Amino acid sequence: MNFRQQLESRWRDADTLLCVGLDPDPRRLPRALRDAPDAVLRFCTAIVDATADLACAFKPQIAYFHAARAEDQLERLIAHIHGRHPGIPVILDAKRGDIGATAEQYAREAFERYNADALTVNPYMGLDSVEPYLAYPERGLIVLCRTSNAGGSDLQNLELANGRRLYEHVAELVAGPWNRHGQNALVVGATFPEELARVRALIGDLPLLVPGIGAQGGDIDATVRAGATAAGGLMINSSRAILYASEGLDFAEARAAWHSIPALPFARN
Amino acid sequence: MNFRQQLESRWRDADTLLCVGLDPDPRRLPRALRDAPDAVLRFCTAIVDATADLACAFKPQIAYFHAARAEDQLERLIAHIHGRHPGIPVILDAKRGDIGATAEQYAREAFERYNADALTVNPYMGLDSVEPYLAYPERGLIVLCRTSNAGGSDLQNLELANGRRLYEHVAELVAGPWNRHGQNALVVGATFPEELARVRALIGDLPLLVPGIGAQGGDIDATVRAGATAAGGLMINSSRAILYASEGLDFAEARAAWHSIPALPFARN
Repeated sequence: MNFRQQLESRWRDADTLLCVGLDPDPRRLPRALRDAPDAVLRFCTAIVDATADLACAFKPQIAYFHAARAEDQLERLIAHIHGRHPGIPVILDAKRGDIGATAEQYAREAFERYNADALTVNPYMGLDSVEPYLAYPERGLIVLCRTSNAGGSDLQNLELANGRRLYEHVAELVAGPWNRHGQNALVVGATFPEELARVRALIGDLPLLVPGIGAQGGDIDATVRAGATAAGGLMINSSRAILYASEGLDFAEARAAWHSIPALPFARN
Repeated sequence: MNFRQQLESRWRDADTLLCVGLDPDPRRLPRALRDAPDAVLRFCTAIVDATADLACAFKPQIAYFHAARAEDQLERLIAHIHGRHPGIPVILDAKRGDIGATAEQYAREAFERYNADALTVNPYMGLDSVEPYLAYPERGLIVLCRTSNAGGSDLQNLELANGRRLYEHVAELVAGPWNRHGQNALVVGATFPEELARVRALIGDLPLLVPGIGAQGGDIDATVRAGATAAGGLMINSSRAILYASEGLDFAEARAAWHSIPALPFARN
């Protein structure tokens, strides 16, 4: 199964739109783990096993592994997900943006070294910064479009001479000429539901990865109304609300904290 | 000395605008090294030592090290440059683009783990994707503006409702409100000298990192006319023309190949 098929089967069979973000901040690891040499791996593996039945995807954020010299733990984490929870796709959140031979190396890193099922990328350098990933048509390519942070408006919301916003132009490129093999998806934040609806109107049923719920204040019901499709359509990311629900190792507590987010996996029913 | 001061002293004392790019493509390493476990490090170290007197900066491209599981070799390479060639700044070319706690991790990776003097970043996510690096005011922040690849026009050259091009808007942000500590610089490709001149007119004497010479067809004399300042102003990157001049280990040959690029270090006299 390719990335899109895996995702659709999770939406359908597990009835969930939740993407579990794995951002292991070393300052916030449980005290019992903090000094272990493989603390990052053990922490993330425990989160993965505790939330797998709720997850349509897992999304490790590569910066945390790079900063902690934990590349080997990232390799083992992704291997663990594939081995223990087959069928749940892994999105490597690296927001890569480079061209030609360099982008080929990033593709090798993501899809061969780490064996991720999908990768986030940045569109600023244009089509040739996306092309090397298209050589892996069974993997997903998730392109930044409209992000949920304050500075997201500095460029993405600029009005173009043709009356469009920059993020709308990106949405049309990614869903149209850049989507040669049907493997593309977009990142659109939850903090602007009306923009999420505009993107949805431009891109048909492409999947959307949606950060900005929880810590950043996005509203889940509005997000689902604006962006869900008949098949599912959304990967609604939650990282901090799950990961740091507890300073201890009580992931049952973390699960409960996640369930306190209003009825996410059931919202589309 | 901070990044800007190091760079200005290299422009002045070594009289060179050459940035030596270190993109160690595993398929193109010299045959004699190819099977060595530290091939990447040995190759790059030899290039560094053979070109240091010509370099205003070194620029390792991180994708090549990530794809080859060679993060430790990148650490040792940068330590070698600092130890053997003090005063020549190291630019980590990673084109990072993320926000908040994640960007803090990328900053830790670049400036603490690797001890780079400057980092390339992507502006698509706006000011908060740049802010965490401003906490290291002695390091340089080199923001993508107008790149030399064909797809660079897909977004960067779009006309905005106010008549400006997107890359001009980025140039003004990076030189203005984003430049709180005077540490900023820009990436502008060599393939469009007239656009390089427009950027220069908008940004005062900010340094420009200029890819696109050599393999990509940019013209050195036109680049220098369009972008040089009294102090220097340019880091003109050359990677492939230096690195792969020879399939053997004859770096004297590589140097000679580089010298066949017309008179770069002397072009500003």
